[in-house]
Amino acid sequence: MKAQDYPPAVLELISQLKRMPGTGRRSAERLALWFLQHGKGDASALAAALTQAVETTTTCPECGFFSAQGEKCTACSDPTRDAQLICVVEQATDVLPIERCGFFRGLYHCLGGRISPLDGVMPEDLRIPELLERVKAAPGCEIILAVGSDVEGEATALYLAEQLAALPCRVSRLAQGMPAGAGLGQADAITLMRALQGRINMT
Amino acid sequence: MKAQDYPPAVLELISQLKRMPGTGRRSAERLALWFLQHGKGDASALAAALTQAVETTTTCPECGFFSAQGEKCTACSDPTRDAQLICVVEQATDVLPIERCGFFRGLYHCLGGRISPLDGVMPEDLRIPELLERVKAAPGCEIILAVGSDVEGEATALYLAEQLAALPCRVSRLAQGMPAGAGLGQADAITLMRALQGRINMT
Repeated sequence: MKAQDYPPAVLELISQLKRMPGTGRRSAERLALWFLQHGKGDASALAAALTQAVETTTTCPECGFFSAQGEKCTACSDPTRDAQLICVVEQATDVLPIERCGFFRGLYHCLGGRISPLDGVMPEDLRIPELLERVKAAPGCEIILAVGSDVEGEATALYLAEQLAALPCRVSRLAQGMPAGAGLGQADAITLMRALQGRINMT
Repeated sequence: MKAQDYPPAVLELISQLKRMPGTGRRSAERLALWFLQHGKGDASALAAALTQAVETTTTCPECGFFSAQGEKCTACSDPTRDAQLICVVEQATDVLPIERCGFFRGLYHCLGGRISPLDGVMPEDLRIPELLERVKAAPGCEIILAVGSDVEGEATALYLAEQLAALPCRVSRLAQGMPAGAGLGQADAITLMRALQGRINMT
């Protein structure tokens, strides 16, 4: 007697869903059954959206953010943005949090990672030459280093500051200190140290 | 100035992923970016698996479990299974847990739900006539009611027992009592009451 199991097509769907990050065997099975019991509409819509997204989504040749079909991204093709202000982020996915805060009106430059010799990521793996070219093409611009405040982010910021030192630009980086809404009790020692170092005069 | 956002194809992918149960905006965004950054292979494989699964997966005409392309399911087409033993479950998804326990060697009958007037599910919405036909075609068989032990499951079991009373079959139902590995402290009052009612003589 062979134990009853799902048909092969369902098992294949479960195994593909299981590949997604954070999706274990049980969740994958639950999702697959949801698609099967929920009618063909949702499954075909997701299948089409997946195909469409991976096939038409490209990288903005200017900044490295996501763009459609080889074009420049929305920010780089927007003439009302301040082209003298370039915010350097590690990953394309770091752009949206900055956009959502609604305060920044300049352009972006996505490095595609951060310097991390332990993970085998060296400066030459990042989009640094492209950044230097952009700075040369926009003399007098300001480069805001919006990299992470962990060890690899610090290393990347220091390396970039050195590379940019000889070029006609100002270089700044994100302030470090207490996150909004946090009490002193929740802040770790390094955050507190940096908040003290970066204290702002009020009188 | 227009805020930078993902290209339309990515937004569409996020919105389709968000439709999946248990997937919120953040998870959907994380999954979409994983597909985009992980190369085309995984996205096309999932798209193909989705299409394949919803298009080829059908319902076994005999028992109502999943089957491929209108055929009978593995269990119903297995001559080594005991056709005189039919396990009645609420949903097709209830079959696998029973198969996995490895103890049952008979066939299944999936009702497609349970009687629940509050949810608008009445006996005529379930595959009950099909069950009665199967019983008539296999006189002397045993019907095991493996429905849930909640109120709706109880109602369904009672209704089925009534319908089956006049037919040439025995009707049994799953034992109720303490789950394996549970201490008395974890069991609720109703479980304990049923475990006491169903107590088994040891001498």
